Amino acid sequence: MTFTILRVLKQPSPDDASNVSKLIKHSLIEFICTATFVYFGTLSAVSTGTKLGGGSGKGEDVARIFPIAFCFGITIMCMAYSIGHYSGCHLNPGVSLLMFFRREMSAVRMCCYWIAQFTGAMLGSLLVWGSVQGLAKSDENLITRNPPFTLGSNILDPEITVGSGFLLELMGSFFFYLVISQTALDKKGIAETSLVAIPIGFSLVVVHVCLIPFTGCGVNPARIFGPSIITCMADRSQCTTVIGDWWWIYYIGPFCGALLVSEFTALLKWQVEPEVVE
Amino acid sequence: MTFTILRVLKQPSPDDASNVSKLIKHSLIEFICTATFVYFGTLSAVSTGTKLGGGSGKGEDVARIFPIAFCFGITIMCMAYSIGHYSGCHLNPGVSLLMFFRREMSAVRMCCYWIAQFTGAMLGSLLVWGSVQGLAKSDENLITRNPPFTLGSNILDPEITVGSGFLLELMGSFFFYLVISQTALDKKGIAETSLVAIPIGFSLVVVHVCLIPFTGCGVNPARIFGPSIITCMADRSQCTTVIGDWWWIYYIGPFCGALLVSEFTALLKWQVEPEVVE
Amino acid sequence: MTFTILRVLKQPSPDDASNVSKLIKHSLIEFICTATFVYFGTLSAVSTGTKLGGGSGKGEDVARIFPIAFCFGITIMCMAYSIGHYSGCHLNPGVSLLMFFRREMSAVRMCCYWIAQFTGAMLGSLLVWGSVQGLAKSDENLITRNPPFTLGSNILDPEITVGSGFLLELMGSFFFYLVISQTALDKKGIAETSLVAIPIGFSLVVVHVCLIPFTGCGVNPARIFGPSIITCMADRSQCTTVIGDWWWIYYIGPFCGALLVSEFTALLKWQVEPEVVE
Amino acid sequence: MTFTILRVLKQPSPDDASNVSKLIKHSLIEFICTATFVYFGTLSAVSTGTKLGGGSGKGEDVARIFPIAFCFGITIMCMAYSIGHYSGCHLNPGVSLLMFFRREMSAVRMCCYWIAQFTGAMLGSLLVWGSVQGLAKSDENLITRNPPFTLGSNILDPEITVGSGFLLELMGSFFFYLVISQTALDKKGIAETSLVAIPIGFSLVVVHVCLIPFTGCGVNPARIFGPSIITCMADRSQCTTVIGDWWWIYYIGPFCGALLVSEFTALLKWQVEPEVVE
Ligand SMILES: [Ca+2]
Ligand SMILES: [Ca+2]
Ligand SMILES: [Ca+2]
Ligand SMILES: [Ca+2]
Repeated sequence: MTFTILRVLKQPSPDDASNVSKLIKHSLIEFICTATFVYFGTLSAVSTGTKLGGGSGKGEDVARIFPIAFCFGITIMCMAYSIGHYSGCHLNPGVSLLMFFRREMSAVRMCCYWIAQFTGAMLGSLLVWGSVQGLAKSDENLITRNPPFTLGSNILDPEITVGSGFLLELMGSFFFYLVISQTALDKKGIAETSLVAIPIGFSLVVVHVCLIPFTGCGVNPARIFGPSIITCMADRSQCTTVIGDWWWIYYIGPFCGALLVSEFTALLKWQVEPEVVE
Repeated sequence: MTFTILRVLKQPSPDDASNVSKLIKHSLIEFICTATFVYFGTLSAVSTGTKLGGGSGKGEDVARIFPIAFCFGITIMCMAYSIGHYSGCHLNPGVSLLMFFRREMSAVRMCCYWIAQFTGAMLGSLLVWGSVQGLAKSDENLITRNPPFTLGSNILDPEITVGSGFLLELMGSFFFYLVISQTALDKKGIAETSLVAIPIGFSLVVVHVCLIPFTGCGVNPARIFGPSIITCMADRSQCTTVIGDWWWIYYIGPFCGALLVSEFTALLKWQVEPEVVE
Repeated sequence: MTFTILRVLKQPSPDDASNVSKLIKHSLIEFICTATFVYFGTLSAVSTGTKLGGGSGKGEDVARIFPIAFCFGITIMCMAYSIGHYSGCHLNPGVSLLMFFRREMSAVRMCCYWIAQFTGAMLGSLLVWGSVQGLAKSDENLITRNPPFTLGSNILDPEITVGSGFLLELMGSFFFYLVISQTALDKKGIAETSLVAIPIGFSLVVVHVCLIPFTGCGVNPARIFGPSIITCMADRSQCTTVIGDWWWIYYIGPFCGALLVSEFTALLKWQVEPEVVE
Repeated sequence: MTFTILRVLKQPSPDDASNVSKLIKHSLIEFICTATFVYFGTLSAVSTGTKLGGGSGKGEDVARIFPIAFCFGITIMCMAYSIGHYSGCHLNPGVSLLMFFRREMSAVRMCCYWIAQFTGAMLGSLLVWGSVQGLAKSDENLITRNPPFTLGSNILDPEITVGSGFLLELMGSFFFYLVISQTALDKKGIAETSLVAIPIGFSLVVVHVCLIPFTGCGVNPARIFGPSIITCMADRSQCTTVIGDWWWIYYIGPFCGALLVSEFTALLKWQVEPEVVE
């Protein structure tokens, strides 16, 4: 924590908010692309859920895990290739915080991105709702209530304690953000600019495979904010399902993960005379 | 829409149709490769369907989604690496329309490509039929009628409204075409020429995972045209199954997606002084 | 066919067999690496088969298709990265024939490679047998007879006619060999040398997903030769199972596929002034 | 064996241990990153296991194989992109031994890495335990005992003989280490530095798909050491389950694999005038 605080206090912030029209444009891009990311990520949870065999009424099946994980991770990869050279393609308030900790982003720009990401996620969930409204039936089943599948909200598995849930979100964020930090920001890394999106996207797939059965895998505060807020607004009786007393782990976990990566970077850069492994 | 209309009216069309023999050659390549794309895409739907356990008579299983999605997306990736430097490897009338909107292609060439793509898709479906004719039995089961599996035609899930189906096809096309547009055409993007086929192919896998259970995933008018027209010609009684009143969403959806991407490009290029994120 | 015959007759063969010690070394590399390829490819068929739930006694399950396909394709990709700069990493008599048709390889070298590939495949199957001999029980079940799982031999599905089986092997070989030919040999393609192994390996995954449920997916005469010959030598009573009257499609199919690709290349190179699509 | 002994005796060891602070830093990075690798690898085994349908009480299902394999392999790929330019990203005592055999690493540095890797794996397993402690119930089921799922320890399938288990671990290590050796160390290979992590990670996925149902797939002595030692320390009654009389195959197998690759390299370099296949 010391290293990050020192860095934020001592190093100047980049001048990336003085050009207001560019800031608005980039925030708009984050808004639209976060909506698209949340749309394809959470829609995969709904789409694979509707094809489960009749035997698994709980909406849980091992064969769903990989396709869902793939959609979240690879959408990020494809978006990074598409708009990374405009806004940086964060689509994740935790990533923006990491960029702030690393002094790659000013506080003003981070706040604009956060607003764009949280509202973009809401738009993404509204589009999911519009796409699968036909699945809603007037019964008590969580999957077929309105909105169906709680729009792919993260729900902590009841067998997992809140502390374990926090640890899972923390570790998942640590790994995902570490890969982002080390490939996108470390100029001495082996990944060329053209390739960095591949480990970034694939690491998010790994994190999802590991976390989906336990926390549903957040590691992105916007990704849980969108579906749960829209579900809660649409149907108050589902509020307690999608916003349990564990809700904070999906926000504090990623933010602590960003801090951890920022600290780990201090170790990596310590007395740095790296051997280039070729 | 304004931006696209203005661009089409004002910017000159490329001179890519005056060399007739080259135009014929490129159309022939699109014809053969669209046939190959439709063959491997729709064949995967049949191949995974024949291995379902006896419990799921409806031909639906969550474990089929990813392999089918993979075949559609990765066939495009491999084809782009193989013949992208000849015809551009569109294999999709929606992509050709996008290239027309972006002024990368003349109207004449687009029409030649469309003819090649729609007829190529028919050839691909004929080859699928020849490959799996042995599965056809003389019963009423959709899967074992002749041609079997309706050759992998797109069929809108009855639980999904036509409006939702249109939204799904629109969003899927928007994302897929956006990745194509931003990686293949934007010279400032992070993806080198050598890499662009990877996000393009992988984004199509994501779109398929999300859309297969609802619309079967078109995002390519040729991909639905081939199997449904051949099935309908082979067995008139299956016409109403493969060409429902929702048929237009598979054509208008992708074309509107191309328009949307063309418009979004105007935003991206607005006041453009992009920061290169390295 | 005309183009290929003309090319073979008119263009000189490369001088790649006069350095005998190098020829021996490269054949030895093909021998060891074909053994490794057949080992991991066919072992995945056995490994996924042993984990099937009790309900599917036939050893068929949709969830097996992708992992098996992945192992065959990605092993080729990894081997190409590892030894491609030594022997060319064919590991497939059909690919060697294609290289002969394209005048990239002399007839003498091709024969040496063929011997190395066919005997290497036998070694690979012997290693599989040694690895899973514990699964063999003294009963009549195909899966638990000795050698178990017929060591992953290709067996034509009884519902598929021999003609369809030939078409499937032909189309699969055509696509796989086309990607090899266009990425590894076409200097103007978009894939840099460093990347060509990715579309090559991934195209083989696609072909396997489509063909496994019908022909088991050969597209490589060595891959079927190894397991079926070892199974037949070990247990004569299994000979009729692994070497049916359809055996020839696994040899003639790939060889015709190589011819088809060689012909298609003539079209691609016809009046060639390719537009570089960037 | 001769070649490796000669090489170790004759070629000087690199001077990579004289800078003690750098050695400590790199060992610390290996420690943290091996913990992360073991965490995500073994956690995927637990996460996919908890989602199995009720029918498969043995915790075995074919649909689990690929997601688990993917997590092990792709975590290595992402870590190589993230910290490969610092410590070399071995995360595996067998890989460090291979680097020693190849004279890329001194014996002193190898010992420091080994300590970091074995203790890092223990930390990773402790973190898994903390993350899934809620699954533990006070019953006799292996999956719900404490620690649950034996934290993803490797257990030799009872149907597989110890000799076959050794062969499987040997072959898996041979292939994985061969790809590492040929892509990361061979300057003439087709894979650029920026790409080598892709075949390395993907080859590990292949090896896992093939070996998981038989040995659980080690090919990394640290990966089995961590979970089995923590499980054994936590619950003495599970010691006989996780440390059977087959325990040595998970250590001797990978070390022999490293030796085999070192020998195979001698063949590849023999009279070396490689043809560059472009
Ligand atoms: Ca549960
Ligand atoms: Ca349905
Ligand atoms: Ca069958
Ligand atoms: Ca067993």
